[in-house]
Amino acid sequence: MFILPNNATIIEVGPRDGLQNESKLVATVDKLRFIKDLQQAGISEMELTSFVSPKWVPQMADAKEIVEKTDCVGRQFVLAPNAMGAELALASGATNVAVFVGVSNSFNQKNINRTTDESMAALEPVISKLKEQGIFVRACISTAFYCPYEGKIEPEDTIALCDRFVKMGADELSVADTIGMANPQESYALFIKLKETFPDVLLTAHFHDTRKMAMANIFATLQAGVNRFDTSAGGLGGCPFAPGATGNVATEDVVHMLDTLGIRTGIDVKKVCEAVANIAQHVSRPIETGMYKLFTNEQL
Amino acid sequence: MFILPNNATIIEVGPRDGLQNESKLVATVDKLRFIKDLQQAGISEMELTSFVSPKWVPQMADAKEIVEKTDCVGRQFVLAPNAMGAELALASGATNVAVFVGVSNSFNQKNINRTTDESMAALEPVISKLKEQGIFVRACISTAFYCPYEGKIEPEDTIALCDRFVKMGADELSVADTIGMANPQESYALFIKLKETFPDVLLTAHFHDTRKMAMANIFATLQAGVNRFDTSAGGLGGCPFAPGATGNVATEDVVHMLDTLGIRTGIDVKKVCEAVANIAQHVSRPIETGMYKLFTNEQL
Repeated sequence: MFILPNNATIIEVGPRDGLQNESKLVATVDKLRFIKDLQQAGISEMELTSFVSPKWVPQMADAKEIVEKTDCVGRQFVLAPNAMGAELALASGATNVAVFVGVSNSFNQKNINRTTDESMAALEPVISKLKEQGIFVRACISTAFYCPYEGKIEPEDTIALCDRFVKMGADELSVADTIGMANPQESYALFIKLKETFPDVLLTAHFHDTRKMAMANIFATLQAGVNRFDTSAGGLGGCPFAPGATGNVATEDVVHMLDTLGIRTGIDVKKVCEAVANIAQHVSRPIETGMYKLFTNEQL
Repeated sequence: MFILPNNATIIEVGPRDGLQNESKLVATVDKLRFIKDLQQAGISEMELTSFVSPKWVPQMADAKEIVEKTDCVGRQFVLAPNAMGAELALASGATNVAVFVGVSNSFNQKNINRTTDESMAALEPVISKLKEQGIFVRACISTAFYCPYEGKIEPEDTIALCDRFVKMGADELSVADTIGMANPQESYALFIKLKETFPDVLLTAHFHDTRKMAMANIFATLQAGVNRFDTSAGGLGGCPFAPGATGNVATEDVVHMLDTLGIRTGIDVKKVCEAVANIAQHVSRPIETGMYKLFTNEQL
């Protein structure tokens, strides 16, 4: 039999990653309801919103209001893409901040017009300031396995980037298969290595279900001892590179699998589905997750 | 790292299991095209059709024509639900026949109005006759993990049923998680035990993706040394108990994962997607598989 963790933590990314990729503008009141529903389902860590320029991402224009009107339960993250975002995050009263960089040069250049090195150089003073203020810093590492432009990313490059973040003071590494190409063997191998290399940092696996390998990857990384997973209620959001393609692995499906494996999360799957049912009315993306379909068929 | 098989065989169940559950009547010519497309994609084992009463399943009324007009490539199975079906299968010239029984009494009673024991008693002379004629017999064991009426099925009961089939002369055991409830731990445990108990029989795992655990289950059973998987192109068919719920795990998603793991199947994922694109025009169910979405987005 497999030796798996007894407990796992879900970091819900739906309100930020999920809604950020949603073309239809969602009203602040509906976002706040979604967040509250998810908290009441037992979710204790969540990416709430992003302090990105509203010119670029109008969906996140209400970031300040979202933070101010959300109860502080466990760790509630806000994304700060740059120094300005970090200032706004601090001003809003956020105490947990996420920063993002891709391992791939080409990916960073296409997305933020900076190389990986330039991105890290720009983030260094940001993280330094956040740490001075006692903020919990979550470092999100995208294209950790594959890049849509460069193809395969060498594990050494991902580990080197993680090392830079840890040296800067990051409290958490969220390591992402951004385009959903990693297989379970690769996922296990990278996370075993990350766990060995960074024993004192919270280590989180972020899988996309584009090629339907996310659940197998989660199972493989559980075998590597990983017990933190980024997931999105309803499978909302994910990679914008493949229109119509499945992005984030769904919270309700992951929690259900963990439940059946006897791995405690403290989360109620049915209540997550109720949260999805409420937000589903306000988003354009169809909800195709396993547990949500059973829920809507009254088979949950 | 994991020790996995070098090769795996896919048993395509789309033309039988997939189309049998399709409410829209599919023309024989379109079924034959689907089968031919799949053969040309490299699929060497397939469930073609079922010799079930056309009164019960009008979709399978053309079983004889399907067998007669299909090229004999590898193993092409027909399903024979009873003695009459076996007679018709033999008369059609089929050389590989599948028979079905559930482990669960309640499941068999609801489906065929017989207990498990009564079903096996009725199948014994059928299998005996098939074996006399030199036919390859595939024994399909449904509700091997969970039953929609009885809940959890004890592994001992599944193994005992498999043992009866092996003693009757079955050449293959296809062991199914009919309602998609098994988790990777349970899947691994049962298949490890089956492999130990029946080392001389072909052992096939049949997973449904209802709760999105099929790919994780396949990965877990690969770790148990299983190298035969029932899958359905486009994810067609599956369990009729949950309308709208996902049924069979998709051939294209499984083959792709096996490809990336370096496990050879001889199957071309893109050609499977082309086969799905052709049959998709004739079925009512939406195709939600990962690889097919990438294919239709021209990202494959």
